[in-house]
Amino acid sequence: MIILDGKLLSENIKSELAAEVDIIRSRGGKVPHLAAVLIGENPASQVYVQSKIRSCEQAGFKSTLIQKSADTTEAELLEIVKQLNEDPDVDGFIVQLPLPKHINEERITLAIDHRKDVDGFHPINFGRMAQGLPAFLPATPFGIMEILRRYNIETAGKHCVVVGRSNIVGTPISILLSRKGYPGDCTVTLTHSRTHDLPGEVRRADIVVAAIGIPEFIKGNWVKEGAVVIDVGINRVPDATKKSGTRLVGDVAFDEVAPRSSHITPVPGGVGLMTVAALMVNTLKACKKEIYQ
Amino acid sequence: MIILDGKLLSENIKSELAAEVDIIRSRGGKVPHLAAVLIGENPASQVYVQSKIRSCEQAGFKSTLIQKSADTTEAELLEIVKQLNEDPDVDGFIVQLPLPKHINEERITLAIDHRKDVDGFHPINFGRMAQGLPAFLPATPFGIMEILRRYNIETAGKHCVVVGRSNIVGTPISILLSRKGYPGDCTVTLTHSRTHDLPGEVRRADIVVAAIGIPEFIKGNWVKEGAVVIDVGINRVPDATKKSGTRLVGDVAFDEVAPRSSHITPVPGGVGLMTVAALMVNTLKACKKEIYQ
Repeated sequence: MIILDGKLLSENIKSELAAEVDIIRSRGGKVPHLAAVLIGENPASQVYVQSKIRSCEQAGFKSTLIQKSADTTEAELLEIVKQLNEDPDVDGFIVQLPLPKHINEERITLAIDHRKDVDGFHPINFGRMAQGLPAFLPATPFGIMEILRRYNIETAGKHCVVVGRSNIVGTPISILLSRKGYPGDCTVTLTHSRTHDLPGEVRRADIVVAAIGIPEFIKGNWVKEGAVVIDVGINRVPDATKKSGTRLVGDVAFDEVAPRSSHITPVPGGVGLMTVAALMVNTLKACKKEIYQ
Repeated sequence: MIILDGKLLSENIKSELAAEVDIIRSRGGKVPHLAAVLIGENPASQVYVQSKIRSCEQAGFKSTLIQKSADTTEAELLEIVKQLNEDPDVDGFIVQLPLPKHINEERITLAIDHRKDVDGFHPINFGRMAQGLPAFLPATPFGIMEILRRYNIETAGKHCVVVGRSNIVGTPISILLSRKGYPGDCTVTLTHSRTHDLPGEVRRADIVVAAIGIPEFIKGNWVKEGAVVIDVGINRVPDATKKSGTRLVGDVAFDEVAPRSSHITPVPGGVGLMTVAALMVNTLKACKKEIYQ
């Protein structure tokens, strides 16, 4: 059993990006600049945003963090989005989700210029991805693709079962893995809360992508011997043995599943870090105008 | 075994549309107007476009057919698209595919204003559909959804196997059937040319959608007893017994499959006619500005 080391891979990607940024800087070119908007005090969101900013700094990117209190109005946030859309120095930006209840997330996502949408959440980027056109791929699915690619995991003709049909992970990764090319050409089954016999479906998988947001949902006997297991879940559960009183677990019961799998991502240290790296890759692409002019 | 009668359903839809157009007209409102652009002399394309125009007339829509010879340049076609985008009387329009080889279909599709993209091919509409936002649904998948809806076919928790991963049928119908709601909530497996044991995958299906473009590809013993079979294929094959020397067949070997299925679409008289009806529904939505302002 091989641990798919998201920490190592993401460090590699960051080093590659840092090397490229060095060259850009030495030639007097534009250094990539990621901005992040954080509204309110959600502790998990704060951790994620800080990790994104820190990673940018490590790779020599310019970064901007715009932090506003939870009582920020939708109109105020739309104005921030507008300014970031218009700021020629900002190559890409994200608005960290979830937003406070009084703000319509959809309206914010649609307001972001798709050419700066490095999270890949805008419908234009989603549609272009699905149609195989150049696009900012949604960061988490992009991170999963990089894990498969960098570990040379065979995908053509493999049966992939995706658990969870969210707009930001389950649905897009199911599309990406069924497209032509590598990683791709999988036979993909997209499963969810309405699926009959979910364990039976998962048992047929050569590649399992768990993205349902339920701690340790996928059990050992659901997984075929030798399967590749990608765990997208990041769930905080009580743990009295920890100083913090909690620990992070994925959507996969790691201790049961790992011995049966050929490859598996840990939580933490798996997909989560790759999401940050993917965001940076998208930001560099935006800076270089690789997707849009 | 029940024949899913696309002819009957599409006539019903056209009658409903005609009734609505009558009301609009009697109130002095804007009558929906579909334009179609046909480049070259592809006989199948001519048949399809004529059928679209005739259906519009039956329902009291305004229609415009712009027919140009095969030597039309890409620049000329882009200019036609621009004029249709800007014409306030045209609610929606289509450019019939395939286009002559010297014209880039992708460039044409992207040039169509997404607010008039009643074929639902533009990435904005594709992305919005996938994300569950209001959108012009691609006409063939929309037609399939209407067949399921109007025959009250149960879909929640059913296993649906889609054969073929095209941008205009296989991929979007797999997304639509896996979304929440009705018709939807299916567990969907998207299969294609790289799938191992395609017959085995199809045999697991409660609902089969065949959209691979190979005449009579799906055989009788591939289909589970009682399955619902949706045949998207329209293939012309030689037939010496016909005056024309050819006949139309689907992607399903109808004579073998029909006795095993609970419901099946015939070819012709199934999905094809529903595609035209769906296009008209989209055009009326465009006229009423139901999707976009």
